[in-house]
Amino acid sequence: MLKLYYATGTCALATHIALEEAGAPYEAVRVDFGSRAQRDPEYLAINPKGRVPALVTEQGALTETPSLLLFVAQRFPNSNLAPLADPFALAQAQEFNSYLCSTVHVAHAHGRRGARWADDAAAIEAMKRKVPATMTECFGLIEHKMLKGPWVMGEQFTICDPYLFTIGTWLEGDGVDTTKLPRVLEHRKRMLARPAVQNAVAAEGTQIP
Amino acid sequence: MLKLYYATGTCALATHIALEEAGAPYEAVRVDFGSRAQRDPEYLAINPKGRVPALVTEQGALTETPSLLLFVAQRFPNSNLAPLADPFALAQAQEFNSYLCSTVHVAHAHGRRGARWADDAAAIEAMKRKVPATMTECFGLIEHKMLKGPWVMGEQFTICDPYLFTIGTWLEGDGVDTTKLPRVLEHRKRMLARPAVQNAVAAEGTQIP
Repeated sequence: MLKLYYATGTCALATHIALEEAGAPYEAVRVDFGSRAQRDPEYLAINPKGRVPALVTEQGALTETPSLLLFVAQRFPNSNLAPLADPFALAQAQEFNSYLCSTVHVAHAHGRRGARWADDAAAIEAMKRKVPATMTECFGLIEHKMLKGPWVMGEQFTICDPYLFTIGTWLEGDGVDTTKLPRVLEHRKRMLARPAVQNAVAAEGTQIP
Repeated sequence: MLKLYYATGTCALATHIALEEAGAPYEAVRVDFGSRAQRDPEYLAINPKGRVPALVTEQGALTETPSLLLFVAQRFPNSNLAPLADPFALAQAQEFNSYLCSTVHVAHAHGRRGARWADDAAAIEAMKRKVPATMTECFGLIEHKMLKGPWVMGEQFTICDPYLFTIGTWLEGDGVDTTKLPRVLEHRKRMLARPAVQNAVAAEGTQIP
């Protein structure tokens, strides 16, 4: 059985939702960031990067959200979570998820994890101050150019939707004025109407703004 | 015909090499960062993010290196550039490429593009100072835990190899002591022996350390 290691409030929620959407047999295991359990030797043996999510499969552990989402889609093809056989459409889905992981999640992380990129306290504060602007810019692009509607890729619900929803739960905390993002907020509402999303959110105790 | 928009010294080289490896019919178009051509309206119409690479296909433009690499592998399946039919192996390749785009490339970018994440000059200097440490940490993980050898995924050359090679060309410039990374350097040498790599490097005028 698959085992998903997660912490509440992290991007692990995206894979959690995808597993629910796929009807996959899995167990969700909470990693207690409060006691820094992500740095315990047992957890580092699963994910040497000391982060979540990690998905333990019969063949070994996998990390990185875009990879886990593609794995769930390909492992449970009947769930139709990605246009697997269409190179252009699949690349579009991967393009969206790559943007989320390499630009949007990174912009958010400068508000809490600035010490990854500078040692100086004033620099870390300067990074925090810019988060509302960078997250607003990223989500402006999503609102106006990327989110096709009703789902990210259009009519078809895909692995892009749980990932957008998850990162979108951070917007208000990041000081973004979401009244300027009506399409993103409608997407959030549409997501919250899905039983799979409700199950994952309830299991993790995710706070929805 | 595919059209790859690139600038020398950027991660576009990874897709350039993959296109060569695939024997794909393509045209490479240089975007002149010196004149800030990546912000020209014509280029923004192709890639609203104003960055490279972008790959224009018959169906539209694609961006984000992990997405372009998967597209090349899936569009030219005879080139065997990814284990497309094996969900776990493909997820492992995507995991590696996601790590490169979301963590390693981002660590490097703090040396030149700090203004993305802070407005304060002292903060941008503080970010620059940490680049040797963060890049050393990332490549330590690659050297010791991720690079299976002889290629990233083991015996099979995949879309992970051009991406690692490309980001690896930045190491010396980022102040990383590469004598501690013998396996990464052997991988670089192995890559440089391939005609596809030689063609892409020559076409771009890439400086190899």
